[in-house]
Amino acid sequence: LIERMRAYGETVFAEMTRLATETGAVNLGQGFPDTDGPASLLEAAARHIREGVNQYPPGPGHPELRRAVSRYRARHYGTEYDPDTEVHATVGATAGIAAALLALVDRGDEVVVFEPMYDSYAAMITLAGGVRRPVMLRPDPATGRFTFDPAELRAAVGPRTRMVLVNTPHNPTGTVFTAEELEHVAAVCREHDLIAFTDEVYEFLAFDGRPHVPLASLPGMRERTLTASSAGKMFAVTGWKTGWVTGPEPLVGAVRRVNQFLTFSANGALQLAVAEALDTQGEWVAAQRDTLRGKRDRLAAGLADAGFDVGVCEGTYFVMADIRPLGRTDGVELARALPREAGVAAIPAQVFYDRQEEGAHLLRFAFCKEDAVLDEAVARLSAWH
Amino acid sequence: LIERMRAYGETVFAEMTRLATETGAVNLGQGFPDTDGPASLLEAAARHIREGVNQYPPGPGHPELRRAVSRYRARHYGTEYDPDTEVHATVGATAGIAAALLALVDRGDEVVVFEPMYDSYAAMITLAGGVRRPVMLRPDPATGRFTFDPAELRAAVGPRTRMVLVNTPHNPTGTVFTAEELEHVAAVCREHDLIAFTDEVYEFLAFDGRPHVPLASLPGMRERTLTASSAGKMFAVTGWKTGWVTGPEPLVGAVRRVNQFLTFSANGALQLAVAEALDTQGEWVAAQRDTLRGKRDRLAAGLADAGFDVGVCEGTYFVMADIRPLGRTDGVELARALPREAGVAAIPAQVFYDRQEEGAHLLRFAFCKEDAVLDEAVARLSAWH
Ligand SMILES: CSCCC(=O)C(=O)O
Ligand SMILES: CSCCC(=O)C(=O)O
Repeated sequence: LIERMRAYGETVFAEMTRLATETGAVNLGQGFPDTDGPASLLEAAARHIREGVNQYPPGPGHPELRRAVSRYRARHYGTEYDPDTEVHATVGATAGIAAALLALVDRGDEVVVFEPMYDSYAAMITLAGGVRRPVMLRPDPATGRFTFDPAELRAAVGPRTRMVLVNTPHNPTGTVFTAEELEHVAAVCREHDLIAFTDEVYEFLAFDGRPHVPLASLPGMRERTLTASSAGKMFAVTGWKTGWVTGPEPLVGAVRRVNQFLTFSANGALQLAVAEALDTQGEWVAAQRDTLRGKRDRLAAGLADAGFDVGVCEGTYFVMADIRPLGRTDGVELARALPREAGVAAIPAQVFYDRQEEGAHLLRFAFCKEDAVLDEAVARLSAWH
Repeated sequence: LIERMRAYGETVFAEMTRLATETGAVNLGQGFPDTDGPASLLEAAARHIREGVNQYPPGPGHPELRRAVSRYRARHYGTEYDPDTEVHATVGATAGIAAALLALVDRGDEVVVFEPMYDSYAAMITLAGGVRRPVMLRPDPATGRFTFDPAELRAAVGPRTRMVLVNTPHNPTGTVFTAEELEHVAAVCREHDLIAFTDEVYEFLAFDGRPHVPLASLPGMRERTLTASSAGKMFAVTGWKTGWVTGPEPLVGAVRRVNQFLTFSANGALQLAVAEALDTQGEWVAAQRDTLRGKRDRLAAGLADAGFDVGVCEGTYFVMADIRPLGRTDGVELARALPREAGVAAIPAQVFYDRQEEGAHLLRFAFCKEDAVLDEAVARLSAWH
């Protein structure tokens, strides 16, 4: 392994899922639902495979998928993207993130990131030879909601800054950034002529009527923003690895040029099935959001009963839980022990931080699971504690 | 786009397939069959999707697939690979190539490659910051078969050499390297302690009883060789994007560490279907090889009748054709004109060369198509010429 990648071990998601499987623990670690998406989506995929959609799709994605993504964004956010040049299909959002960072970040370029951050951001910035400039997300003392200090954001931008990397709704904190918060990002991007990359895979999962605000919808941002999303989360088929990026042609073109050599294309039949779902499954997605809001409340209440200090969650599959009320301070140690000790797996938030001590006392729990599974996890944690 | 990637435009496969679609040309460019793999394979994939294999598989691949790949290699080549640590599923061979080159080639490292070469090799070596040291494959004057001069191979290795990159059966020349040829590679790898990466996606397609010799099977090579292969070619489902790499743990571990951030995993349900096929579809693959050998002969004869000087093809989906007997010398110009002028698309071999003049007079034609399609292409080319 080349030297600069040696700091990156197995992803924590893979590690914790493996540990859960080995120990028979309830897996509230890796973010995947235990109930698959709409039956008609699965049927459509099965039909396309049986009926012969089995050869290379166009590298940029099936035109049907690109058009459906374009319509989806127009319908939900009023933003227009040309399906031929401004939408590109990727092997899940992860491949979109990788292709974008490898295509746009050159050696020595700085990328402003918000920590905690999804683990692949740091790895791909490093692989690209870029340098992270982290801005801390901390719980607001008044509301408990994770947010950032705009002055810290401004201070992170310098002459070598190339990109700001945003994720909203935010994994792992559960924050759904407001238009005001995102306007701070937009302002520095406009002033310093920066590219923005925004991971919005949880775009459909802002709860309690809170709107998801796409970063690209802010003034002056459409022309400089690449947005990644995916069907895996939206339609509860995380194993399909079918995502997309949208943005202005020069940025999508850059992604395309690198992505064609990373994966050539995403799977063909699944793209067609997802294209149909984007047009037709709006009600299913809305119902899924309501269901997940209920699951959030269920798990949050249970974790509080079990003694954790539970964070505010406005969106995503995840809640953060402070372990200090349990007399613990080392989340990594606890997360490694919990599957065996308590029969529950969670993710230590520390792995998402550059300044690791900031996240040492936090575990991330996924609530995208059957109610009975959540109840069992809570029962086990209560019994353990 | 970062500067060092600007030389890489749209892949020639995407460009030529697009041109074929736009003009209604018979597409003998990009290498994909026009008949899908075994019905039971498609049925298995459809069944797994309908029955709920839709969430993230383990990042390294479904254990079933890893075990089936391990059994396949043991059965065909007598080499043992531990499915847990020495086999890793990738999003097609392309993702295996990308992950391997990005994981193992550091800035300034030299990679010995044979030209002509599949286009992603050069792009990914460049993205990694590596330097290509090309060794020319030229038709042997006696046999017409593309091969290399061992002295040129030795001369290409220097103190900065990190890796030798091999592809057998070879795209685009159709050469199936012999044990003697590969021994020259093995010797320099052993002497200079180099890593070998070998793309063997056409391993099942060596014709006329010629054996496919895995590079890893040569003395001293197993411990230093990473091998990529895929189901797309083997089972005629190129759109499935399901491949794998095999090799010793340190090399596979390096691929795993980078691949987890490039794509996280390959599609889940398709991996399970492919695992079954690896164990059960041996006869289908053998019959497919016979069928393709017939198609090779059919297209080669037709192209010769149409005035091309047709190369020797020992394996793969492809034949090379010299355009000089037609009074042409610029294959790129001809390949761009042919879809409109003749109604046939092919790949200009020049794009596979560093020293482009060496391939200027060659077109690559794919014969993995229905006989009627091959006949139509030949009829059109004859009429055009
Ligand atoms: C690609 S595995 C990680 C899934 C996920 O988004 C998470 O658990 O944060
Ligand atoms: C990934 S598209 C290229 C397919 C292929 O192997 C070829 O045509 O050479």
